[in-house]
Amino acid sequence: MLMMAAPCRMLLIGAYAPPADGGLTLGTFANSRETMLGNAARLPVLLHDVEWDVHPGAPASPGFWPVEMREEFAIAGVNRLPVVRQEAASGRWDALVLLGGGDPGFLEAREIAHRHRVVVTACAHAQMHAASLLGRRFTILDVSENHNLRMADLVQLYRMEDRCASIRNLEFPLPRAAHEGRINVQQEAERHARGEPSAMLEVAVTEAVAAIEEDGADCFILGCSAAYWLQAPLQQRLAEIGWDVPVLEGYGAAVAQAKMLVGLGVDASGLAFPADPPRRTRRRKLP
Amino acid sequence: MLMMAAPCRMLLIGAYAPPADGGLTLGTFANSRETMLGNAARLPVLLHDVEWDVHPGAPASPGFWPVEMREEFAIAGVNRLPVVRQEAASGRWDALVLLGGGDPGFLEAREIAHRHRVVVTACAHAQMHAASLLGRRFTILDVSENHNLRMADLVQLYRMEDRCASIRNLEFPLPRAAHEGRINVQQEAERHARGEPSAMLEVAVTEAVAAIEEDGADCFILGCSAAYWLQAPLQQRLAEIGWDVPVLEGYGAAVAQAKMLVGLGVDASGLAFPADPPRRTRRRKLP
Amino acid sequence: MLMMAAPCRMLLIGAYAPPADGGLTLGTFANSRETMLGNAARLPVLLHDVEWDVHPGAPASPGFWPVEMREEFAIAGVNRLPVVRQEAASGRWDALVLLGGGDPGFLEAREIAHRHRVVVTACAHAQMHAASLLGRRFTILDVSENHNLRMADLVQLYRMEDRCASIRNLEFPLPRAAHEGRINVQQEAERHARGEPSAMLEVAVTEAVAAIEEDGADCFILGCSAAYWLQAPLQQRLAEIGWDVPVLEGYGAAVAQAKMLVGLGVDASGLAFPADPPRRTRRRKLP
Amino acid sequence: MLMMAAPCRMLLIGAYAPPADGGLTLGTFANSRETMLGNAARLPVLLHDVEWDVHPGAPASPGFWPVEMREEFAIAGVNRLPVVRQEAASGRWDALVLLGGGDPGFLEAREIAHRHRVVVTACAHAQMHAASLLGRRFTILDVSENHNLRMADLVQLYRMEDRCASIRNLEFPLPRAAHEGRINVQQEAERHARGEPSAMLEVAVTEAVAAIEEDGADCFILGCSAAYWLQAPLQQRLAEIGWDVPVLEGYGAAVAQAKMLVGLGVDASGLAFPADPPRRTRRRKLP
Amino acid sequence: MLMMAAPCRMLLIGAYAPPADGGLTLGTFANSRETMLGNAARLPVLLHDVEWDVHPGAPASPGFWPVEMREEFAIAGVNRLPVVRQEAASGRWDALVLLGGGDPGFLEAREIAHRHRVVVTACAHAQMHAASLLGRRFTILDVSENHNLRMADLVQLYRMEDRCASIRNLEFPLPRAAHEGRINVQQEAERHARGEPSAMLEVAVTEAVAAIEEDGADCFILGCSAAYWLQAPLQQRLAEIGWDVPVLEGYGAAVAQAKMLVGLGVDASGLAFPADPPRRTRRRKLP
Amino acid sequence: MLMMAAPCRMLLIGAYAPPADGGLTLGTFANSRETMLGNAARLPVLLHDVEWDVHPGAPASPGFWPVEMREEFAIAGVNRLPVVRQEAASGRWDALVLLGGGDPGFLEAREIAHRHRVVVTACAHAQMHAASLLGRRFTILDVSENHNLRMADLVQLYRMEDRCASIRNLEFPLPRAAHEGRINVQQEAERHARGEPSAMLEVAVTEAVAAIEEDGADCFILGCSAAYWLQAPLQQRLAEIGWDVPVLEGYGAAVAQAKMLVGLGVDASGLAFPADPPRRTRRRKLP
Repeated sequence: MLMMAAPCRMLLIGAYAPPADGGLTLGTFANSRETMLGNAARLPVLLHDVEWDVHPGAPASPGFWPVEMREEFAIAGVNRLPVVRQEAASGRWDALVLLGGGDPGFLEAREIAHRHRVVVTACAHAQMHAASLLGRRFTILDVSENHNLRMADLVQLYRMEDRCASIRNLEFPLPRAAHEGRINVQQEAERHARGEPSAMLEVAVTEAVAAIEEDGADCFILGCSAAYWLQAPLQQRLAEIGWDVPVLEGYGAAVAQAKMLVGLGVDASGLAFPADPPRRTRRRKLP
Repeated sequence: MLMMAAPCRMLLIGAYAPPADGGLTLGTFANSRETMLGNAARLPVLLHDVEWDVHPGAPASPGFWPVEMREEFAIAGVNRLPVVRQEAASGRWDALVLLGGGDPGFLEAREIAHRHRVVVTACAHAQMHAASLLGRRFTILDVSENHNLRMADLVQLYRMEDRCASIRNLEFPLPRAAHEGRINVQQEAERHARGEPSAMLEVAVTEAVAAIEEDGADCFILGCSAAYWLQAPLQQRLAEIGWDVPVLEGYGAAVAQAKMLVGLGVDASGLAFPADPPRRTRRRKLP
Repeated sequence: MLMMAAPCRMLLIGAYAPPADGGLTLGTFANSRETMLGNAARLPVLLHDVEWDVHPGAPASPGFWPVEMREEFAIAGVNRLPVVRQEAASGRWDALVLLGGGDPGFLEAREIAHRHRVVVTACAHAQMHAASLLGRRFTILDVSENHNLRMADLVQLYRMEDRCASIRNLEFPLPRAAHEGRINVQQEAERHARGEPSAMLEVAVTEAVAAIEEDGADCFILGCSAAYWLQAPLQQRLAEIGWDVPVLEGYGAAVAQAKMLVGLGVDASGLAFPADPPRRTRRRKLP
Repeated sequence: MLMMAAPCRMLLIGAYAPPADGGLTLGTFANSRETMLGNAARLPVLLHDVEWDVHPGAPASPGFWPVEMREEFAIAGVNRLPVVRQEAASGRWDALVLLGGGDPGFLEAREIAHRHRVVVTACAHAQMHAASLLGRRFTILDVSENHNLRMADLVQLYRMEDRCASIRNLEFPLPRAAHEGRINVQQEAERHARGEPSAMLEVAVTEAVAAIEEDGADCFILGCSAAYWLQAPLQQRLAEIGWDVPVLEGYGAAVAQAKMLVGLGVDASGLAFPADPPRRTRRRKLP
Repeated sequence: MLMMAAPCRMLLIGAYAPPADGGLTLGTFANSRETMLGNAARLPVLLHDVEWDVHPGAPASPGFWPVEMREEFAIAGVNRLPVVRQEAASGRWDALVLLGGGDPGFLEAREIAHRHRVVVTACAHAQMHAASLLGRRFTILDVSENHNLRMADLVQLYRMEDRCASIRNLEFPLPRAAHEGRINVQQEAERHARGEPSAMLEVAVTEAVAAIEEDGADCFILGCSAAYWLQAPLQQRLAEIGWDVPVLEGYGAAVAQAKMLVGLGVDASGLAFPADPPRRTRRRKLP
Repeated sequence: MLMMAAPCRMLLIGAYAPPADGGLTLGTFANSRETMLGNAARLPVLLHDVEWDVHPGAPASPGFWPVEMREEFAIAGVNRLPVVRQEAASGRWDALVLLGGGDPGFLEAREIAHRHRVVVTACAHAQMHAASLLGRRFTILDVSENHNLRMADLVQLYRMEDRCASIRNLEFPLPRAAHEGRINVQQEAERHARGEPSAMLEVAVTEAVAAIEEDGADCFILGCSAAYWLQAPLQQRLAEIGWDVPVLEGYGAAVAQAKMLVGLGVDASGLAFPADPPRRTRRRKLP
C-alpha cells in the first residue's frame, strides 16, 4: 500500500568558505559531511533518510570574513548566488539548505531556485517559523551588537515582529579583526566541546531567563551558526531551573523545513517569485 | 555514519465519527487507513516512512453533524479531547494529527498532549503556516457562509491576519439539514471522482483568479476537509491559465508539519501550554 | 412625553454549578439572587431597575472544576450552551449575562441567542470594552499562571492586543487539587470579608503600581470572578498613594453592557453570527 | 432588596447653536427637550428613566456654520468648552452628552469633566464602540467629502482602524454656502419626514450593500447627526433584501454609553486625563 | 546651467504671544528675528539662504498660558488659525513654520494653507519624521506629565506608534500657576545659558540612557520648545559616554522640512485636505 | 546676522553604468551633470545652491542589466558599495545620493557612510518619506511585474505598509532581453520627449484614478527611475480631471532629503548603524 517514495535529495551550502589566507580557523565553517552531523543535536536524525551532501560555500571576499556587518552579509549573499544557480539547475537536488545564521542571499536564492522547483531554506527563517509553531513569542539569543541588527533586519524581512519578543545580545562576537583581544564565540564553543565551563553558556542562561521574565519570550532561537552548540545545553539548563521552554538552532530547523516542503511538493509561489519574464502579470499588488 | 532513527509514529484522528443513525453518508469522514491515502495527492509520499494509523474520531453529538456553526465546532472539539487524552498518554505515538478543516479542539489538545511531549497538528493551522512559507498572503477557498466565519476565527486565533488575503466562499455547503435541496460539496466531490465536470471546481477557479487579481493572494489553502479534493485539479487549472501558484490541502500539511516537529524533537512551549500545576510561574505576561 | 418602557429582563447564568460531590465549597459560585448583589459594589445600583434572576449554570463536569486550564474552559463553555439555548428561546429574557471570569462559551452563546435577538454579555469581554472607554491600556490582574493564559487568549480573541498593557499574575490560584496546600483566592476573599488584612490585596497593589510604572497601564480589570472582590479596595488603595485610576470587575461590567445593548435594541450583527442557513451569503470575507 | 438608586442626571449639549443671523434653518440643530425625543428611534426608551435636559450649545462662530472642515470642527470644539466647564462644575449632572456627529471638543471636554468625575460621551465615539460589540468591522455612512475626512481623523483618534471597514460617502452635504444649489441632507431629512421617497436613503442602501460585499462591513454607523434619521429605515431596507445587519446612530449610542458609565461609577482614567497639576507623575509613557 | 531660483520665503509663527498681563516672562516665547537664531544650534545654517521673518503668534487666551493641558492646546491652536489664514493668503510666503513643541493648530493650518499651495510645518511633526529617517525608534524627552500626554496624542495623530519607543518625562514643567514653587524648564534653560550645571540636563542624560537600554530608542526628539536648548549638550553628553545617537529639536526640524517641501514644489495632497467645496469627490475612503 | 554657511556638497551616484558591450542604449542611465538637470522637473531648483557632481555608478555585471529581478538588485547593490566606500571616505561630500528607482545597496551604503558622517539618500526611500508628509497613503506606479515586487520588498523594508495604498503595474518594462519585442518604458520616454502621445502616460492616468477610487491613494510616487519623466505630465493630467493630488519622482526627492539632513547636521543613528566594532553595546534590542 505504501508508495515507494524516492528519498529527499538535499544540498547543504555553507555561508562562505574561509579564504585560503584567512588566518583564522573557524571550526563552524568547516562544513563537510563529516563535521556536519556533529553540528547540531538533531541533524543525524533529520538526515538519516536523506540523500545529502555539503557544499562549502563560495569563497569569502577578502577582508569581509567572518561576516557581521550589513555590508558583509550583502557581499556574502551575492557571492553565494552562482553556487545556488548552478546547483538548482543541476537536477540533482530537491532542496538547497543555506547554512549560516544570517541567511545571506536567501530571497534571491529562492527566486533563482523556483525556476527549477527546488526548495530553498535558511537557518534564521526556518527557526523563526518553527518557533512560531511552538509558542507566542521567541527571543533571539545572539553573539554581538552588529549581528543583532542583522537579526533585527531579518525579523522585519520575514514579518515576524509580532512573534519576536526581543533580541538578546550575549556579546561573544565572532573572531574578527575588529574584536581582536576579546573572548569570542569560537573559543567558547571549543571550551564547551572540551567539557569545560563556558561563560557564554552562563550568559545565555541569564539572558534567556530575563527574556522569559521581562520580554514575554516562550521559545528561543539562536542568531549565529557559530553559537548553535548552545541549543542542547541551554535547553537543559533552563529545564533544570524550572523553565520548560524549547531552544532551536538553525541547521536542524532548515533541514526539517526543507524536508517538509519537499514532502508537500511545493517550494515557493510563482506570484511571489515570478519568472523572467513572468508568465502572467497582475495589475495591482497590495503592500 | 547515518543514525538508525526509529520511524515517526503518528495517529490521524478524525474530526468526528458520523453517528450510527447519521442518515447521511459523508465519504470524507470515512477515515480509515484504506481511504486515507486516497484523500490527498501527497499523503502516500508523506506517510511512506511513517508508522501510522487512523482513529475515526469521537462520535458526533446527535443533531450537530456535519459541523458548520461555531457551536458545532465547540462541541466537536470537546468531544475529541478524551480521544486525545488517551492516545497522547498511551506512549504509542510521536504525533497526533487532528483531521478536519476547522481544527476543533486543537489548542486544548496541544495542552493535553504536551504533558507527554506528543506533537499535535491540525489542518487549517498547518496549511496557514505552510502557506506563509510560500508567499506573502494566502486566500482560503471555503464551502459556505458559516464555515467561512469559523475560518475567520481561526485566522485570528493563529495570528495570521496579515498573511491572509481573504476568505472566498464557494457556497457548496456540507450536506446538512439546513442546506437541504442544495448542491453540496459531497456531491461535487463524487462528481469529480467520477471524472465528470464539477461546478464547484469552476467556481473555485473563478474565485481563485479574483483573489489573485483583487485581494493580493499568492497562495491558496482549502477551508473544509470535504473540499480537499480540489487541491490538485485547482492548481492544475490555475497553471493552465498562467498562474503559477501553489494550492495546499490540510491532510498533507498537517502530516508534514507533524513530521517536521517530531524530527526537531519539539512539540510546544511549556510556557505557552504549562502543566497543571506549572513548574514555575511568571509575574507578567504580554498580550 | 416619556415612553413607558418595560424594564430590562435579564438572566445571569453561572459559569458552572459545583458538582454535588464537589468537596470544595467555593462561595463565589453560590450564584443566587441573594448572594449576587453582594458580589460587586455596583451591582445593586445596576440591577435596581432590572427584572432579573440567576441561573446557577450547568453542572461542572466531574474532575474539571474549578476551571483554570484551556481544556476546562472549553468543556465548561460547551456545558453551558444547552442552558443558553433554552433560555434564549424562552422569550423571557432581553439579555443573558454569562458569569465567570474567563467567558466560557461566549461566542457560541451569541450565535445561539442572536436567532432570538437576545443580548449576551460576558465578564472579561465587557470589562475590556469598558476599560477601552476609560484610558489607553488596561492591565489584567489575575489569579494564576494557567488562568493568565486563558486571559491572553481572550485578549486576542477580542482583538484587544493594542489596548492591553499586560497580564499580571498575583499567584493566588483557585482551590483546585493541583494547587493543594497553597493559599488560594477563596481564602483571601474570606479573609478580606472578615475585615482581616489580605496578602492578595497587597500583591495586587504592588503589581498594579508596577503595571502603571512599567507597562503603561492606566486602567485595571480583574481576570477571575473569584477575585472580583478586589475591585473596590484596590481602587481605594491606589487612590491613597496618588494613582487616580479605575478598577473594574466583571459582574458589573457585563450587566452594564447588557443594559446598554438592550437599550439600543441591538444584540449582534447577523453577518458576524449568521443563521443556519444564512438568509444571504457573501462571496468574500476579509480577515 | 433593591437599592433605591437615584436616576441618572444627564445634560445633552448641542454641537453649536445656529447664529441668530444664520439665515439657514437647520432642524437638526433645534436641540430642545421637545425635538430631541423625535431625533432617534431609541431615545425615548433610553431617556425614560433619566433626568435630562438639553443645552443648545455655544453659538457657532460667524461664517463657520454648519461645520464640515477641519478648521470648523476645531473652532466648534473650543467654543463648546466653556459650556462643558460650567456644567461639569455645577454638580447638577452625572453625564454630559456631546451632540453632533463629529465630536467637536470631546477629548478636551473629558479632561475638564474628569476633575468633577462627570462622564462625557460623544456620538461618533459611542457609535464606534457600540459597533465594535456587534461585529468585526463597521462602515461609516457619511454626508460629504470633507466630513468623511473628519470621520477618518476620528477613526484614528479612537484607534478604530482595525474595526472600521470603510467610510462611504453619500454626497448629500450639509446646507452650507459652499454647497449652494446642491441637494443637501436637510432637504432629504424633510422629504423622508413627509413620507416621500428619499434619494439619499436609496444611495445609503446602495453604499451599504457595497460595503457589505466589497469592504467586509458587518455593521453600520452614521457620520453626521443631520443624517441620523437614516438609522431605522436603512436597517429596515437592508433586512428586506436579506442583510441582517445593525445600523446605529449617534444620539442613542452616546446616551446609552453615558448611562453605562454612570452605572459603573467611572468616567475616565486619571492617568489618561491627569489633573492640573497631576497628583502623581510617571517617568515613562508608552505610545 | 544653474537655474536662478528665488530664495525660499518663510514665516515662523509663534505658538502664542504671552498676554500683556502675563506676569511670567518666558524667554522661549520671545520669538523675534533676533532671538530666533540663538534658539537652536542649526537655525543659522538652515536660515542663511532663506528670506524669513517671525510672527509672535496670536495672543494667548487669558488664564491658558503657558499651555500644557489638552484644552489649552486646543485653544492655542484655534487662536493661531486667523494668523495662518491671513499670512497664507498674503502671497508673501512659500512656507509657514508653526513654532511650539505641541503643534497647536497644525492639521487645520494645513487645510487652510493648501488653498494657497503654502507649505506648513510644525515642530513635533517635523522631528518625528526626521527621526524616522535616522533610526528605528525615537524617544521623546519631555517636560511634564500632561505635556507628555499631548505628545502621546501627537504620536498617534501622526501614526508614529511603531516608530516611537517611549515618552520619557523629565518633570521640569513649564512655569505655570499649577506648578508654582517647583523648579521649571525656564529656570534650567537660564541656568544652562549662564554656563551653570543644569539638573534638567542630568535627568535628560539619565532618561536617554534608560530609553536606549530599556525602550529600544536609537534617536531622541524633544517634546517642548522650552526644552530645545537640550539638543546640543545632550547629544554631546551621550557621545561622551559612548552612545553615538542623534538628538533633534523642533525649530531646526520644522525649518528644514519646510525647505525640503518648498524645494519639491509640494505642500499637501488635495485629497487629504480638500477645498471647500472639493473639486471632485470619492465614493469611499479607507481608514 | 546670517551665518556664511558653506554650500552643501553632494555626489549623485548612478545605480550602475551600462556595460561597454551593453548593446542597449538606455538614456536614463546616461547620468552626467549635463543630462541630470533634465531628468526631473525640480532638479534645477533643488541643485541650484549645491556643489554637486555625478558618478556614473559601478559597471553593471554582465548579463544582469538593466535590473528588474531580486538577484539583479542584490548584485547591483553590492557592486555600488566600493564607490560608496571611496567617496564617503574622500572628505569631498556632505551627502551621497544613490540614483535608481529600487535603491540597490542603500542600507549597506548608510552603514559605510555613517563612519564618515556622510548622508546617504535613495530614490524610493526618499519618495516614500516625502509622500508620508503629504497625505495618508501613496500608491507606487511602476513598470513591470518583477520590479513591482522589488517595490513591495522596499515598502516592507522601510516599514511603510500602513502608508502604502498599493503598487500599480503599468507593464511597460525595462528594455531587457526577457521583454524583447514588447514596448518598453524607454521607448515611451522618448515618445513623450518628442511630444508624441504616450500610451504609458495614458495607462498611468487610468491606474492612478483607479488607485484613488479603489485603493485609497492620495499621493503618487514612481517606482522606476526610467519612468520618472511621468511626474509632471501625470500630475497635470490628474489635475485636469479634477484630482488635486501630488506626484513625486525619486531624483528630486532624494536630493531634497539629502539637503534637509545635511542642513540638520545628522545622517543616521549610530545605534542603528554601529561602527565596527561598536563603541558601546546594548544588552537587548526590540524587534
